[in-house]
Amino acid sequence: MDFTIRAATLEDCKDIRRMISELAEYEKVADQVMITQKDLEQDGFSKNPFFHAIIAEVPEQHKTKDGHTKIGFSIYFYTYSSWKGRAVFMEDLYVMPEFRGKGIGKALMSKIAQLGRAAGCTQLSFTVLNWNKTALDFYQSQGSVDVTSDLGYHYMCCHGDAFQKMADRDP
Amino acid sequence: MDFTIRAATLEDCKDIRRMISELAEYEKVADQVMITQKDLEQDGFSKNPFFHAIIAEVPEQHKTKDGHTKIGFSIYFYTYSSWKGRAVFMEDLYVMPEFRGKGIGKALMSKIAQLGRAAGCTQLSFTVLNWNKTALDFYQSQGSVDVTSDLGYHYMCCHGDAFQKMADRDP
Repeated sequence: MDFTIRAATLEDCKDIRRMISELAEYEKVADQVMITQKDLEQDGFSKNPFFHAIIAEVPEQHKTKDGHTKIGFSIYFYTYSSWKGRAVFMEDLYVMPEFRGKGIGKALMSKIAQLGRAAGCTQLSFTVLNWNKTALDFYQSQGSVDVTSDLGYHYMCCHGDAFQKMADRDP
Repeated sequence: MDFTIRAATLEDCKDIRRMISELAEYEKVADQVMITQKDLEQDGFSKNPFFHAIIAEVPEQHKTKDGHTKIGFSIYFYTYSSWKGRAVFMEDLYVMPEFRGKGIGKALMSKIAQLGRAAGCTQLSFTVLNWNKTALDFYQSQGSVDVTSDLGYHYMCCHGDAFQKMADRDP
């Protein structure tokens, strides 16, 4: 199937927001999604954006029954490893179910690696849910290493009241 | 003990590089550190930096036997959650052993939360090695959640040949 991968624009935020919900439903965390289309527009498409995004698109004749031609996306941003330097982080990688198994996910991931390498990065990082065997197998087939299982790294987060309290403290 | 927390400058890169090594030795991964002082200068202190850093400093009279007054640091950068929006990631948090237990680590972490909140972030993320019980206890005492243990998120990385191969593929 024909598809194209391109940089997302402000006009894609509505579809990105739709697909974020679809992915969250798949990951059984739909109630965790607080973000709005406006947040995405503001945070990704103004000066000093917090993220970048790419879109997978199919031609009109392959549109979904709901009329969607934007059928996959990935959000990414640049990070830094104090051991290895410049890195790119893939926050989301999503392809609508009916378009899976056609190399679109692989193409999105490659595009991010390519963009990362062009920016001087030597690694691509991301997180995956350990029960999502399909995703884990896919990522490992692409040569990705499970840093949590292999080296014991745990992902930690401070949010809500704890974050506010921490920020309130006078350092 | 008196100490100050301030934004790092280009001139701090030598000490940051030294402390990155000290931290890596503690984490038993000293051989993994590829980064040079020049990398840090270039990646953190030019236009569109890949990271930011803060330094903990003590007055001359408390300097170490090797003459160091820069005795702690943290590297951080802004990231993005497709559920919750703007976030700040703490890549490293380090205080030299003889200065621990004096609230310096807590002050560094608070400073990052503060800077993050000022930039519109609602969470602070980081990773920790699961055998580093002292660090885990410290972070949990500050209200941080172990997202790997609690929700099953695994940290994944694609680097080296696998990264190059991925970037080479024509998306």
